[in-house]
Amino acid sequence: MSSTYGTLFKISTFGESHGAGIGVIIDGCPAGLTFDTDFIQHDLDRRKPGQSRITTQRREADEFEVLSGVFEGVTQGTPIALVIRNTDQRSKDYGHIAQQFRPSHADYTYQAKYGTRDYRGGGRSSARETAARVAAGAVAKLLLQGQGVHIQAYVSQVGKLKLEKSYADMDLAVAEENAVRCPDPETAERMFALIDETRKKGDSIGGMVDCVITGVPAGWGEPVFDKLHAELGKAMLSINAVKGFEYGSGFAGAEQYGSEHNDEFYTDEAGQVRTKTNQSGGIQGGISNGETIYFRTAFKPVATIMQDQDSVDSAGNAVVVSGKGRHDPCVVPRAVPIVEAMAALVLADMWLRSRANK
Amino acid sequence: MSSTYGTLFKISTFGESHGAGIGVIIDGCPAGLTFDTDFIQHDLDRRKPGQSRITTQRREADEFEVLSGVFEGVTQGTPIALVIRNTDQRSKDYGHIAQQFRPSHADYTYQAKYGTRDYRGGGRSSARETAARVAAGAVAKLLLQGQGVHIQAYVSQVGKLKLEKSYADMDLAVAEENAVRCPDPETAERMFALIDETRKKGDSIGGMVDCVITGVPAGWGEPVFDKLHAELGKAMLSINAVKGFEYGSGFAGAEQYGSEHNDEFYTDEAGQVRTKTNQSGGIQGGISNGETIYFRTAFKPVATIMQDQDSVDSAGNAVVVSGKGRHDPCVVPRAVPIVEAMAALVLADMWLRSRANK
Amino acid sequence: MSSTYGTLFKISTFGESHGAGIGVIIDGCPAGLTFDTDFIQHDLDRRKPGQSRITTQRREADEFEVLSGVFEGVTQGTPIALVIRNTDQRSKDYGHIAQQFRPSHADYTYQAKYGTRDYRGGGRSSARETAARVAAGAVAKLLLQGQGVHIQAYVSQVGKLKLEKSYADMDLAVAEENAVRCPDPETAERMFALIDETRKKGDSIGGMVDCVITGVPAGWGEPVFDKLHAELGKAMLSINAVKGFEYGSGFAGAEQYGSEHNDEFYTDEAGQVRTKTNQSGGIQGGISNGETIYFRTAFKPVATIMQDQDSVDSAGNAVVVSGKGRHDPCVVPRAVPIVEAMAALVLADMWLRSRANK
Amino acid sequence: MSSTYGTLFKISTFGESHGAGIGVIIDGCPAGLTFDTDFIQHDLDRRKPGQSRITTQRREADEFEVLSGVFEGVTQGTPIALVIRNTDQRSKDYGHIAQQFRPSHADYTYQAKYGTRDYRGGGRSSARETAARVAAGAVAKLLLQGQGVHIQAYVSQVGKLKLEKSYADMDLAVAEENAVRCPDPETAERMFALIDETRKKGDSIGGMVDCVITGVPAGWGEPVFDKLHAELGKAMLSINAVKGFEYGSGFAGAEQYGSEHNDEFYTDEAGQVRTKTNQSGGIQGGISNGETIYFRTAFKPVATIMQDQDSVDSAGNAVVVSGKGRHDPCVVPRAVPIVEAMAALVLADMWLRSRANK
Repeated sequence: MSSTYGTLFKISTFGESHGAGIGVIIDGCPAGLTFDTDFIQHDLDRRKPGQSRITTQRREADEFEVLSGVFEGVTQGTPIALVIRNTDQRSKDYGHIAQQFRPSHADYTYQAKYGTRDYRGGGRSSARETAARVAAGAVAKLLLQGQGVHIQAYVSQVGKLKLEKSYADMDLAVAEENAVRCPDPETAERMFALIDETRKKGDSIGGMVDCVITGVPAGWGEPVFDKLHAELGKAMLSINAVKGFEYGSGFAGAEQYGSEHNDEFYTDEAGQVRTKTNQSGGIQGGISNGETIYFRTAFKPVATIMQDQDSVDSAGNAVVVSGKGRHDPCVVPRAVPIVEAMAALVLADMWLRSRANK
Repeated sequence: MSSTYGTLFKISTFGESHGAGIGVIIDGCPAGLTFDTDFIQHDLDRRKPGQSRITTQRREADEFEVLSGVFEGVTQGTPIALVIRNTDQRSKDYGHIAQQFRPSHADYTYQAKYGTRDYRGGGRSSARETAARVAAGAVAKLLLQGQGVHIQAYVSQVGKLKLEKSYADMDLAVAEENAVRCPDPETAERMFALIDETRKKGDSIGGMVDCVITGVPAGWGEPVFDKLHAELGKAMLSINAVKGFEYGSGFAGAEQYGSEHNDEFYTDEAGQVRTKTNQSGGIQGGISNGETIYFRTAFKPVATIMQDQDSVDSAGNAVVVSGKGRHDPCVVPRAVPIVEAMAALVLADMWLRSRANK
Repeated sequence: MSSTYGTLFKISTFGESHGAGIGVIIDGCPAGLTFDTDFIQHDLDRRKPGQSRITTQRREADEFEVLSGVFEGVTQGTPIALVIRNTDQRSKDYGHIAQQFRPSHADYTYQAKYGTRDYRGGGRSSARETAARVAAGAVAKLLLQGQGVHIQAYVSQVGKLKLEKSYADMDLAVAEENAVRCPDPETAERMFALIDETRKKGDSIGGMVDCVITGVPAGWGEPVFDKLHAELGKAMLSINAVKGFEYGSGFAGAEQYGSEHNDEFYTDEAGQVRTKTNQSGGIQGGISNGETIYFRTAFKPVATIMQDQDSVDSAGNAVVVSGKGRHDPCVVPRAVPIVEAMAALVLADMWLRSRANK
Repeated sequence: MSSTYGTLFKISTFGESHGAGIGVIIDGCPAGLTFDTDFIQHDLDRRKPGQSRITTQRREADEFEVLSGVFEGVTQGTPIALVIRNTDQRSKDYGHIAQQFRPSHADYTYQAKYGTRDYRGGGRSSARETAARVAAGAVAKLLLQGQGVHIQAYVSQVGKLKLEKSYADMDLAVAEENAVRCPDPETAERMFALIDETRKKGDSIGGMVDCVITGVPAGWGEPVFDKLHAELGKAMLSINAVKGFEYGSGFAGAEQYGSEHNDEFYTDEAGQVRTKTNQSGGIQGGISNGETIYFRTAFKPVATIMQDQDSVDSAGNAVVVSGKGRHDPCVVPRAVPIVEAMAALVLADMWLRSRANK
């Protein structure tokens, strides 16, 4: 009941880490969109495991099959079903946790909620589910491209190591040229070293992903509960390991005076109403104002570490959980396409909603 | 289409700042709940304007009328309609902005989206709408009290002035004893002085509200998109002026290693599975784990200031907007009951959902 | 949780028969619509009690107040809240049924579901709730008028007395000229006599309302579950006392061969694709085809009769329920505007949805 | 956006007649249900083509694969994805209608709505989609069996040939013993002959499916818009070829007086409140009353016939569409499990809703 997102561009994902496969139905994608499979596969490749030595070594091709909704290369307005088979499930790696709760994983809470759980690789709570989001998000991106909207996320922090430059002062496309996905090559190198060192220690480390969206005209977003930034926040917080979200000035805005925080208006040469600053992060009253949309998402360190930890088993007895299985020492490089995908899903939905209730 | 929140405990709010009134329909409140009008009015009183010299001087009684859903003092399972009349609308105060866009308000974006707007006091975008949320949230609180759930928010920051103590080290009830709603009396006094000084300068200032929830058993919350913290995040971000949300370790968690961040499990004397630390903020995999739920919400400085600001009018001409109208120099003291209300609405909904799909 | 209808043009009603009042929030009505209060009041007057001696003698002005969503006579895209006060509640008339279940009313089922009920006049289950629908439906009609859509319902049957003419062979506007709302004056007179005779016997009688909708272009409606006729069916069946729904050929279609039932296509002089016949009732595959939309709704006799009936009380003891209170001997004359209102709500929603996902 | 049904037991179907496959995601099925694949396959077999000479000769194994949501034979509370591959697509049979609109099919309306369509076998509008509903409905039946609910549909009419006996006077299980699925063997034989004769003429014929549901306790269903019978009506009307729905006394109820229509209450030996008659069809005020739920669904004759028909092509030119492809001469025998499936989906949803908002 909670695996569905969106009001008009609606996705429903399914699948467990070690089941037959995962996938998504997109219901509400307008007809007539050219369905660019290479584009979609490219985003899946950006998320897939095994891209470098700082990501998990699980091997998944993450190739998708289109079961419906596309005819002669074009969307039909009917549900688009995409399936990705699981191929490298080493379920036996997980036998030892069938009766144990791994710290800061969802093992205990799923058991408490459902009275049962597919313990293999985290089952439904695995971040593997996000591959389905990335596939759906890529379709949303295709739709938004037709509206001139461009979405670019990048890594801005790993542990205490922070990228100090503003998004406005960098060529964000550079982020795709390194394994960390940081648009500043020098910082990227230091981040890579930090993650690799963490990996060698059998530890994990947190980080931050920033997202920049251009081309959204004024008027997207819904007032009151479904504010554009509220939906973006929910979407980001629904990604595994996310602990915080801020947009525009964010938490720093709480420290400011109104006289320094307010974005004054002016009219540019093209006759367009603009703001002099962008503390609003492109959103005012929950509705886009035509400026660049900017938000940040904080990720905790991955819960799986290669170290012994205290825990309990299903019967409540004290146990020591030892780290096994494959995992990412830092999730943010692979999280970049996930953040973009969720942003695309929110914006595609808001665009359709703005068409309906204009 | 976006003034509705919730899946099973569903609220729909209505009303503009200077219209006839505001209100809310609650659809899905279970039957048989004793409808404590004093309790609800008390929460409205905590939010209402004019409580001290550091809040807006608009005078609203904020008394509510029950139009439906309650019979002989008990809820009937049918929609509960609550109406609050606007009484102190000084619409003439706003004539000067009918054709001007106030910086960092929603004037421009509403106009862009709808092609029209009720400019009086911000119309629908006014924080006056939150009174309806507080009324509905109070009903949700009554429902949750029956489940042993207690929700307490408080001010933890005003501008750069931060409360350094943890929620675990304070008597949070003290927050209600001062005008700022900070549980540390000494810090509260300094915060009051800072807000008052800001007011005198005709400026405004941002701040932070923390929220602590006890008594939620393990198992509330829905996986994947409607994770408990994702819904809390959306709910908070939907409140006017909110710029960021974090739960548990939050943004600080991004700086940590897994070995320091993970919450190890143990079994307490009562045989209950517990965690040694609470970086998870009471939520793992989007589902409550029985520990204290803890989150923080960042508020920007109120956009209305008593200073001249550059802007444009509807025709795009440069204008100077001068500060008029009544406003809060700092929104966080009055935001405390709003944060609680939204948290209550999320939890009531999650409780009902957990009953359905257990 | 079930007092809300619609996806994009969404209404939420509230109120009990003998509470303070009833009303509706319309969320999703586009901005810029001229809000014609006279038009809305006119539809409420068509539904209100006491119009002639064949309707209930309860006296309700059924005047509505606009609490929000309209500014300077124009909708703002924000929720429109309409409230109708109850003024002629004779709750004491219902004391005798506080502990008794009236046959074929909802007394027993509400008690079974909620463990409590507002017994006065049926509480929430009263058809009084439909006044809120009529008000909202009138707003939907205003919206649809701008699209050239016209909705006209009429009484086609009272008891066994059936109007034999097709909608295509009558001037439907004539229906509004008589108390029964039958477009054939001679049949209307006989129907009036039958209802009046039924009234004198303290009995009630069933009937049928047909509905004819013109001006809907091809392409409105959603495939699979939300087919246009499925939504119309649900909307009609949600009206008190409705027992059946059919569209186009309806139940008679079940008796036919495909060779006689199929609607062959042709192109008319204007170059428009048309069908030679209209067994499809204007809808094919759940989507409008540009022909006249036609459906029929069957109403049972009103459950309240002025005769003694066997029943049980809350404790399960046998009792005799004697008819008291005011009631309609036949519901269909007043049901005509309700059927139109629900049809308008369905179509307004489908129109907005067709704009979004085209 | 319209391929999803249900509030808490939510299904989303996908797939076209001649695409790679069809399927369904069930989101909201409680954890812990034994997933009986044989039971599900059995219902799919009841619906599948090629069961006798009076059904279409398309050959589909209609075997399903479980992609997620089931672990060690038990549901996990997570989305259950079921996929059925299309195997006998003879798409070349449909080349002739790529540019033609078949009378009383959805070819024209899909084209009008989407500007494109998958013309092969009707694409998304094909009744093949209902296999996904049957699979999901079988899961719902499994869930309901645990509550003692039993659902049985049967054919009550083919063309003008009507079964005159009441459901109460027959052994409904007999319906499954003949190809027509009529519980009266003698009538079944005559129906079979009528359908076979129709088939030989290259024609099709309409019919009726009745449905009987026992074991539903008093209190399921939601008042106002989501009345139990309104949801059943929508669910039935969403099935291809359905033209009408009635429950309890249905259209015949419109002919009656209240004094003959009302269901008087009594208390049975077991102390249970019951009604003497069941004109209400087990539902009062939209909520089950504990009696047998009974409704009827009218199906038009299948639109595909083996005869020449007038039509137009995409350019509006007059053409003659000649009957090709495989089809059912009468849809009702195969519709029986579809009606049951939709009824099961409605009831499973209502059961979960009644658990939440009790």
